[in-house]
Amino acid sequence: MEFYYVPDFSPEFVDLSPEEARHCVKVIRHVVGDLIVMVDGKGCRAKGTIVAISKERCQVQVEERETVKNQRDFSLHIAVAPTKNRERIEWFVEKAVEIGIEKITFLLCDHSERPRMDMLRMERIAVSAMKQSQSTTIPEMQIISFNELVEQEKNTDSDKMIAWCEASAESEELATRNLLKNDILLLIGPECDFSLREIELARKSGFSEVRLGLRRLRTETAALYGCCLVVGKKLGDRSWKIGVGG
Amino acid sequence: MEFYYVPDFSPEFVDLSPEEARHCVKVIRHVVGDLIVMVDGKGCRAKGTIVAISKERCQVQVEERETVKNQRDFSLHIAVAPTKNRERIEWFVEKAVEIGIEKITFLLCDHSERPRMDMLRMERIAVSAMKQSQSTTIPEMQIISFNELVEQEKNTDSDKMIAWCEASAESEELATRNLLKNDILLLIGPECDFSLREIELARKSGFSEVRLGLRRLRTETAALYGCCLVVGKKLGDRSWKIGVGG
Repeated sequence: MEFYYVPDFSPEFVDLSPEEARHCVKVIRHVVGDLIVMVDGKGCRAKGTIVAISKERCQVQVEERETVKNQRDFSLHIAVAPTKNRERIEWFVEKAVEIGIEKITFLLCDHSERPRMDMLRMERIAVSAMKQSQSTTIPEMQIISFNELVEQEKNTDSDKMIAWCEASAESEELATRNLLKNDILLLIGPECDFSLREIELARKSGFSEVRLGLRRLRTETAALYGCCLVVGKKLGDRSWKIGVGG
Repeated sequence: MEFYYVPDFSPEFVDLSPEEARHCVKVIRHVVGDLIVMVDGKGCRAKGTIVAISKERCQVQVEERETVKNQRDFSLHIAVAPTKNRERIEWFVEKAVEIGIEKITFLLCDHSERPRMDMLRMERIAVSAMKQSQSTTIPEMQIISFNELVEQEKNTDSDKMIAWCEASAESEELATRNLLKNDILLLIGPECDFSLREIELARKSGFSEVRLGLRRLRTETAALYGCCLVVGKKLGDRSWKIGVGG
């Protein structure tokens, strides 16, 4: 079953974007009268019937809207320094969306290697991964400086962690950490790591230092490893709570 | 610090491979008399001095050999169906080696989309990821059929799991599963999933069905998610045992 991305299907009639229309009509070869499924990236799904097709246009009458219940009772936000190689950070976005993530911040750090991101391209990658994994949400995405992020998060009640290679021996492995809060924020630095100034600022702002395993991981690997571990741990806790598994 | 891959540095004098020699001499611009670090992919590291450089050749006198103690007290084997898109399975190999994996089997399944793998290319990717993560081991890699793997593993004392999308509701989430054994084997199927024949054969051969989270994951995403979760869980257990973290 194909999913089509329509950011707002509250009107009775909606147009697919040119890209989605092309896929729907030229690739899948849908015709007028066919039923399709749409997702809005915000947790809703709708069924609709194709009522008109013309050059690059595909109009759909929305019939059944449903809010897909979020099966996750936690929220994961990963803030990661964009990698010099564009493909590597794009790959992280794709994989994190498949596995499930609520927010991605591209973090401009003292040692950052890439000062800009094509946010529209990131959205396209997220939409594609959402459809692939048959989920209904894309993460909120932003690009801001380290200082701005710390300021933004100062007064939130989340479990704030910063991962860095030189983390002191007393710092905890993410693998053993109890994630008691429902909002999790994990910071992953650039290839040259966070600066001492940034670590100090994070410490003062309520972030805990964590380690990510025994190896030196690339930025995007560290970010995805962190994502998998948080999801796995929270899902593990959740299953225990509701009595599944054992 | 650069690492050079030399599969056997037991002789007093060794030659770097043409590829490694080129990198050492042309890119890093090492000269005769320089000290370099070599890894053999089997857990050993050695220091050596460059004694001769000629066209495409770099000879090293091995001076100090050391076995790097394996910091992992468990062994992870992931058997995964190669993806149709070559890059996706290559990406899995790179990331799994960074995070740490002892064995990778490319599994030829009833619904497999790719019957062949360039195993030399896979080794090059593994070597590059090993050097990148500053570890000293590359995983053992093989390509065999589903039946052969099951036969190979029949009498081993490992925790054998098969992940598939249609896993019954009673099947366990990998996230909640207690991984009590030190040898872990996880099977990940092709995009069209395992066949019922394969599932039945696995069941009869002592494999447990597991689920990987709430989303439909691509083959390579499922394999890496499984890899991260096993490593995280075992590392978590280990840290508890030796009293690190809390």
